[in-house]
Amino acid sequence: MTITVAVDCMGGDHGPQVTVPAALDFVREHADVRVILVGLAEGIKPFLGDAAVGRIAVRHATEVVSMHESPSLALRSKKDSSMRVAINLVKQGEADACVSAGNTGALMAMSRFVLKMLPGIERPAICAVLPTLSGHTHVLDLGANVDCSPEHLLQFGIMGASLVAAVEHRERPTVGILNIGQEEIKGNDAVKRAADLLTDSGLNFIGNVEGDGIYKGAADVVVCDGFVGNVALKASEGLAQLLATFLRQEFRRSLLTRLMALLALPVLQRFKKRVDHRQYNGATLLGLRGIVVKSHGSADALAFGCALRRAADEARNGVLARISERMAQQPPLQETA
Amino acid sequence: MTITVAVDCMGGDHGPQVTVPAALDFVREHADVRVILVGLAEGIKPFLGDAAVGRIAVRHATEVVSMHESPSLALRSKKDSSMRVAINLVKQGEADACVSAGNTGALMAMSRFVLKMLPGIERPAICAVLPTLSGHTHVLDLGANVDCSPEHLLQFGIMGASLVAAVEHRERPTVGILNIGQEEIKGNDAVKRAADLLTDSGLNFIGNVEGDGIYKGAADVVVCDGFVGNVALKASEGLAQLLATFLRQEFRRSLLTRLMALLALPVLQRFKKRVDHRQYNGATLLGLRGIVVKSHGSADALAFGCALRRAADEARNGVLARISERMAQQPPLQETA
Repeated sequence: MTITVAVDCMGGDHGPQVTVPAALDFVREHADVRVILVGLAEGIKPFLGDAAVGRIAVRHATEVVSMHESPSLALRSKKDSSMRVAINLVKQGEADACVSAGNTGALMAMSRFVLKMLPGIERPAICAVLPTLSGHTHVLDLGANVDCSPEHLLQFGIMGASLVAAVEHRERPTVGILNIGQEEIKGNDAVKRAADLLTDSGLNFIGNVEGDGIYKGAADVVVCDGFVGNVALKASEGLAQLLATFLRQEFRRSLLTRLMALLALPVLQRFKKRVDHRQYNGATLLGLRGIVVKSHGSADALAFGCALRRAADEARNGVLARISERMAQQPPLQETA
Repeated sequence: MTITVAVDCMGGDHGPQVTVPAALDFVREHADVRVILVGLAEGIKPFLGDAAVGRIAVRHATEVVSMHESPSLALRSKKDSSMRVAINLVKQGEADACVSAGNTGALMAMSRFVLKMLPGIERPAICAVLPTLSGHTHVLDLGANVDCSPEHLLQFGIMGASLVAAVEHRERPTVGILNIGQEEIKGNDAVKRAADLLTDSGLNFIGNVEGDGIYKGAADVVVCDGFVGNVALKASEGLAQLLATFLRQEFRRSLLTRLMALLALPVLQRFKKRVDHRQYNGATLLGLRGIVVKSHGSADALAFGCALRRAADEARNGVLARISERMAQQPPLQETA
């Protein structure tokens, strides 16, 4: 089986100069994939070189969605944008997945409009992989929804668990819900009611996970509303940057400390590689009738390659079928407020 | 002027063996403070030694609030607990502030019941200091409230700005509201309406701050609801622990890397000291008619000393009067939903 990934080559801070080389490497490294490079043909070609790699097609698209464009405007007016055409390829069955480093809001709006939702899923969720002490965890939603009902949170749990089950071949991944500590009033009403729904869902639900539990690996899947998830993710990124800056400053303080840094370089480089956030690049827009992966806008070729691999992995392992099967087993929910 | 701090000696994971030595050091280091050590006299005395330090009183209290006790139960039944007596001392004017490392929920419930709220403030908020690239920032609420109205968030902004103005002698500290990125749907309704109220408040309001903006020092005061604040804080703590663990593991990988760690030790120790979370220990319960500072339950003497200093600083600089004055200038709000 060949997996075809449609690549929005124009998205992100760097456009084709990052997306095209990453796609070429991706095809070279995986014998079972092909890519369709979508975007301004004259922008893509210079980066294709004379690479005699097969399994690469170029699909010209005349427009580009800019990073700060209004999602609704982009949805209405950018019908021949690289982003829209890439999503269309998934809809039309020409591609098994698409990847974009472009405007998140526009990608979400277009994907939802073009692909529609899977049966029983009311809202898409952004799902990313984060490192933990013992491996990694999947967290969703990271910003697609700001006000989630308990039923939405239940659906996020089902989608996340289905994703992990499919991609990692684990039948009963643990699911937790992000909440605040035991000492304080435990969580808001939506979270409490979602916990009840998750308890009755048949998922391997382990209950509340506090903020630090994410990185401790408390659960394979951590469910939260998009506002909380987005803030938590970005706050941790901010702290990581702060710590990295302080560590760098201490090693650059004097000639002597610079010498120490030089001596400790192999260790520092291993550490840096281990915590390199690029290897976690690629957030999945779950809940759609198609696989859409969002790369960070600032991704370089290494990071963008990770997003491409994630998209192919999900297609290869039938994530959508898994979610649909799981949803079909789910008793229908009451209409939500 | 002498500042008197009532110390709940029984709270926290370690009780008097941490709180009493920390209080003794605190008194030794600050000529203008006295402490009232509250708790089981026979538990406190062994740690007092024969220290010939004046400005120390012991107030016997027969009960202890345990760390996982229900706040409402503790409020009803533990009227002679060290926590309750310490708060009473503030109420009765015998102490200018109190500090506890005990059960957060119980401390909040008792403080609110005994001290009552400042005029115009509807909810107390937990406010902590966090490090930034350029110094530090104050964030509130960190867990006292899980569902905040826009008016509550406005009041948090006023309280936070008043606190910074008083303690740091800066007349117009910047205030931001925690929100999610530009790419996504911008924030929930409460946050949007709070931003409108803050814009009209006369505060030095700078608008939205994203999660990473906290640690970048985007604002002197960052306002959020307690659920989001708590999750963001704990998530960053979790990531910091993860990074510290990975760094340690890399330096312990082999004899050679251990040697490198030894060589780089001065730098690593400076880094460790710089990012030592103990120096940020002590969260203020803002909005009460009295100064109450919550120490982390696991605080050691160094960390607990920081909480004591924070309490004294706030009393010395008239934080409560500053908040009251600012609230008096505020036009009365409409009744909230």
